[in-house]
Amino acid sequence: MNCLEERIAKDGIVREGNVLKVDNFLNHQMDVELFREMGLEWKKRFEGKNINKILTIEASGIGIAAVVALEFGVPVVFAKKSKSINIDGEFYSAEVESFTHKNVNNVIVSKKYLTEEDHVLIIDDFLANGCALQGLIRIVQSSGATVEGIGIAIEKGFQIGGKLIRNLGFQLESLAIVDGMDAATGSIQFREQ
Amino acid sequence: MNCLEERIAKDGIVREGNVLKVDNFLNHQMDVELFREMGLEWKKRFEGKNINKILTIEASGIGIAAVVALEFGVPVVFAKKSKSINIDGEFYSAEVESFTHKNVNNVIVSKKYLTEEDHVLIIDDFLANGCALQGLIRIVQSSGATVEGIGIAIEKGFQIGGKLIRNLGFQLESLAIVDGMDAATGSIQFREQ
Repeated sequence: MNCLEERIAKDGIVREGNVLKVDNFLNHQMDVELFREMGLEWKKRFEGKNINKILTIEASGIGIAAVVALEFGVPVVFAKKSKSINIDGEFYSAEVESFTHKNVNNVIVSKKYLTEEDHVLIIDDFLANGCALQGLIRIVQSSGATVEGIGIAIEKGFQIGGKLIRNLGFQLESLAIVDGMDAATGSIQFREQ
Repeated sequence: MNCLEERIAKDGIVREGNVLKVDNFLNHQMDVELFREMGLEWKKRFEGKNINKILTIEASGIGIAAVVALEFGVPVVFAKKSKSINIDGEFYSAEVESFTHKNVNNVIVSKKYLTEEDHVLIIDDFLANGCALQGLIRIVQSSGATVEGIGIAIEKGFQIGGKLIRNLGFQLESLAIVDGMDAATGSIQFREQ
């Protein structure tokens, strides 16, 4: 098990409805030393890739992306959620449906901070059905930049997102892939990597 | 001038209505190496304080807080914005008015992640009228934890927030205090520190 899988096994809480709560260390309280170790692992997995920028989405991706960016020596851009449909020409935007909040957000990135010269690593905390991630990929592609890879902390392997993104040919590196959970016993099955 | 003041002078953009845009390096694109230098400066200014946790608020405080937390060797908790007034007993909450978005948010922190044993450094990107900061202080105080200090990247010195917080006796360390801006010339006056 890697550092993240060990931590999920120790502190993750399984709730009914395939909910995995990791707010103790990942998305409310944040263990930044763990994020540094995750950064080192992604650095190994994306070795040889020419990455000059990290892209993430507010809010819970930002802390992971910022610490990981220190390891890569590159800046971060975070996509903002905007209720307004009335976005002017200064932004790339994509519509994203939230699995957790059951609503649709417009996600925007300023055209100043993504250009065709950028080689982007996308970082996020969770991957389930892949809606947020597809929105980020569309934004990178609109700008003419290149998606060099995608780093996800926790992938829900029993949902469609991971398969869909890998089928599109992207290098998707999820540090923990959860193939099953049992709320009654609290047990979590990780995919062998 | 310190590293942040230099960067604001170089890349900050002044707009009509006392708006200072720093989305090139602080709150949309993030220069994490700059955040590390800011962390070192806060470490000097809060030397001798017994800090075991950093508290910030989503979204633009999170990246700064995460990188600064690495320097302090402590975890971060970020307060979440919640539209729901119907918060159950699991959270500390405070109402916060947003200067930028002209709306009111409920700001919440899980009771699990702030207790009376915590000695908290509050970190945020901007201080203007102080509404968000007062909400965070109320949350820390509700939990019985201690506010050891407050680190702000950019304080608008011509608005009331900084004076108000210092008058309450808190050690508030703003790395750049802007006392005036001129949209016509683009000039920015920093307070001597």
